[in-house]
Amino acid sequence: MKWIKRLKEEFGKDRVIDEIETRRIYSKDESGIEDSLCDCVVFPESEKEVSRILKFASRFKIPITPRGGGTGVSGGAIPLKGGIVISFSKMNKIIDIDEKNMTLEVEPGVILENIFKEVEKSGFFYPPDPASYENCTIGGNIATNAGGPRCIKHGVTSNYVLALDVVLSEGERIFTGRKTRKWKAGYNLPGIFLGSEGTLGVFTKIYLRLIPLPECIQTLLVPFDEKAYAGICSSEIIRNKIIPRCIEYVDESVFEIIGDDIKRFFPDKTRAFLLIEFDGKEEEVKKDIEKILPVLDKNHAIEIYTGIKEYERQKLWKIRRDILPFLEKTGYKVRSEDVCVPFAHTSNLIKIADEIRKTFDLKVCVFGHIGDGNLHINLLWEKQEKETLNRAVEFLYRKVVELNGTITGEHGIGILKKDFLGIEQDNTVISIQRKIKKILDPKNILNPGKII
Amino acid sequence: MKWIKRLKEEFGKDRVIDEIETRRIYSKDESGIEDSLCDCVVFPESEKEVSRILKFASRFKIPITPRGGGTGVSGGAIPLKGGIVISFSKMNKIIDIDEKNMTLEVEPGVILENIFKEVEKSGFFYPPDPASYENCTIGGNIATNAGGPRCIKHGVTSNYVLALDVVLSEGERIFTGRKTRKWKAGYNLPGIFLGSEGTLGVFTKIYLRLIPLPECIQTLLVPFDEKAYAGICSSEIIRNKIIPRCIEYVDESVFEIIGDDIKRFFPDKTRAFLLIEFDGKEEEVKKDIEKILPVLDKNHAIEIYTGIKEYERQKLWKIRRDILPFLEKTGYKVRSEDVCVPFAHTSNLIKIADEIRKTFDLKVCVFGHIGDGNLHINLLWEKQEKETLNRAVEFLYRKVVELNGTITGEHGIGILKKDFLGIEQDNTVISIQRKIKKILDPKNILNPGKII
Repeated sequence: MKWIKRLKEEFGKDRVIDEIETRRIYSKDESGIEDSLCDCVVFPESEKEVSRILKFASRFKIPITPRGGGTGVSGGAIPLKGGIVISFSKMNKIIDIDEKNMTLEVEPGVILENIFKEVEKSGFFYPPDPASYENCTIGGNIATNAGGPRCIKHGVTSNYVLALDVVLSEGERIFTGRKTRKWKAGYNLPGIFLGSEGTLGVFTKIYLRLIPLPECIQTLLVPFDEKAYAGICSSEIIRNKIIPRCIEYVDESVFEIIGDDIKRFFPDKTRAFLLIEFDGKEEEVKKDIEKILPVLDKNHAIEIYTGIKEYERQKLWKIRRDILPFLEKTGYKVRSEDVCVPFAHTSNLIKIADEIRKTFDLKVCVFGHIGDGNLHINLLWEKQEKETLNRAVEFLYRKVVELNGTITGEHGIGILKKDFLGIEQDNTVISIQRKIKKILDPKNILNPGKII
Repeated sequence: MKWIKRLKEEFGKDRVIDEIETRRIYSKDESGIEDSLCDCVVFPESEKEVSRILKFASRFKIPITPRGGGTGVSGGAIPLKGGIVISFSKMNKIIDIDEKNMTLEVEPGVILENIFKEVEKSGFFYPPDPASYENCTIGGNIATNAGGPRCIKHGVTSNYVLALDVVLSEGERIFTGRKTRKWKAGYNLPGIFLGSEGTLGVFTKIYLRLIPLPECIQTLLVPFDEKAYAGICSSEIIRNKIIPRCIEYVDESVFEIIGDDIKRFFPDKTRAFLLIEFDGKEEEVKKDIEKILPVLDKNHAIEIYTGIKEYERQKLWKIRRDILPFLEKTGYKVRSEDVCVPFAHTSNLIKIADEIRKTFDLKVCVFGHIGDGNLHINLLWEKQEKETLNRAVEFLYRKVVELNGTITGEHGIGILKKDFLGIEQDNTVISIQRKIKKILDPKNILNPGKII
């Protein structure tokens, strides 16, 4: 392609990679979508370079796919129309931890785990923690408004974004938002870029607020001999106005596949468990635990494991985080859903998963952030079952929307959910989004084919 | 006017009021802007009626000014181009407090204080609390993304909005957002309507999340004999990672005007005080207070009054909230500013106020939410000083923006700050906002002349 030669002339040969192996690697994410291929990958080192790439792409109408860690599961990072993938792996600096103002300034390519570690050194906490935090980037987190287990008490990514440096589709650079705790000057532009999955602009710097690192974390592990009990128990915790930082759910559908690694923690009759975590001051956490114990008891907990040590805690979370990668190694294809319903309807989500098993004869693995109504319902399928899978997914979405839920609580729309957005949003709402896309990306070069 | 006759035919004479006294009342807010007059006021009772009004207005290109409590100080509720004021005083129902899902469904005309009272009965807390909460409406709060003293720990209105029913400029009704804790389906439309000051759509129902009512509130009253000490102390509290729910600041510039009502609380040499409040579990609050005492000591507190009783607390807050209405009764015109800077720069705001006094020879009263860097710098002026006032305001904004601050932390742009938006935002950012306005309100009938 002619334009690649030109791009290499502009940026240098070592910065514009078009050999096939790299193109293949940078054309995949965790969605399992495999049939797209970018034309080249560019590795900018500054906002200025990102701007130059976009000016170039705009001039020649070349599709741009911004890419963080490639850990998304909805296809947001797939270069559906070819073109240039922008990798932010060289823009990975933590620029400033401002202790006095409790803010953080980072480049988009920083791995989330590095943020956790660095801010912790200064006594701060950045809560949103998607399970992929060892590999995902903060830029990707902003693009998807990432969540994770710790959001019940602490909120999702949007609760922490103060301002953004954004390069617009024609290469123009803007700063939007403000590094202040309160900000009311005009429309909420950072809020529109946030969660836009690379379709409205490309982030080059991110300004976040931090909170003090909690003094103390306490973890409870609670097995149940009925899945429904675990679901109801989670809703009851919230109904009792107890707000842990996490309530994670894992059930027998996961045990079956992962096996002893998980099962050895529990009595034989366990069919589901909750992993509950409190944080805060020691006295506060102690009181929370006093308050939750009778709720767990009343709601059929078989056992309540408290006093879990830090290394055990780390191990439990590692197992929890490894479920999805493990599923992906089973030989099945994995469709990882992230539907979310209001707190009180959580046990219905577990029932819906059962219905899918029966109706569509698919393996369904269920785990996730039950505390905020957000369960990962993973459909395991084989190539010949594509049609069945699609029907099962649509069934899931329709059931969830009936419960005032959403088809995506964390992962975003990307490619996989695009055709289903109409299940929860009417045409007018979708058409407003199309118009917003059009004013910010009139040539449709920014991550084309995604969301709407 | 012909269209008013027609509007009366459609809605009934008793619902469309065009007698001069009502028009005058509904053409003012707390901004002091007095030279606009609407043509009539309509009092819809349902979403359907709001939609009919907007269809009518769209057909005849009549300006619409949605109005809550009329307590805004930036002119957002002023019918700058005449036309119809929509009052939501008849859409004032609390529709549902959903205890299991910790959510609230309300009509826009509900007075904020009624929300506080009602949710408290069920053990819930809705934190954002602009000083006007006895008169302002939740619809106005959404339109301005209102703040208040309790936002340091608990965040502003945007942290509590889940979804909105909105009537668009041509009368179409949409629901945007989701009643779930996490939501990632497409662009963040609720986030764009939120804070749009009635320029993008008209809210007819609001879905909010609630948090559990804190067990305990403790208040500290802390006088200083230098204003700067109070400012530095506030930043030092935050730097020590202590997060009260409020840190309010009031200084001698207020004492001078209000007099004994405030002064009697303090030693004679007091030149400023902080009103600090913690909430949470009893043990947690106790520990917070243990932690803050040495910080206050070290930062030159003359006294530290603890153990303040509930009736005293109520009285203190009432005095605090009454400062602005009191200033308005002095005979001066009051320009109430709401600049906000990062935590660490707060004491600079106090200095800037001093500079304004000296340079422009204006009375300046300073109080506000110093804990989150958001001070109300009130400029008192007389008619012949208009020009001086404008120069002083611009001086303030430029100084604040130099500190990475914003020209408005709470009040919004409205009319008064419109010409100054360019001080903190560049042309591209403003032009994106113009384009968003255009796609949502192509005929420019929704609160025309505001923000951009």
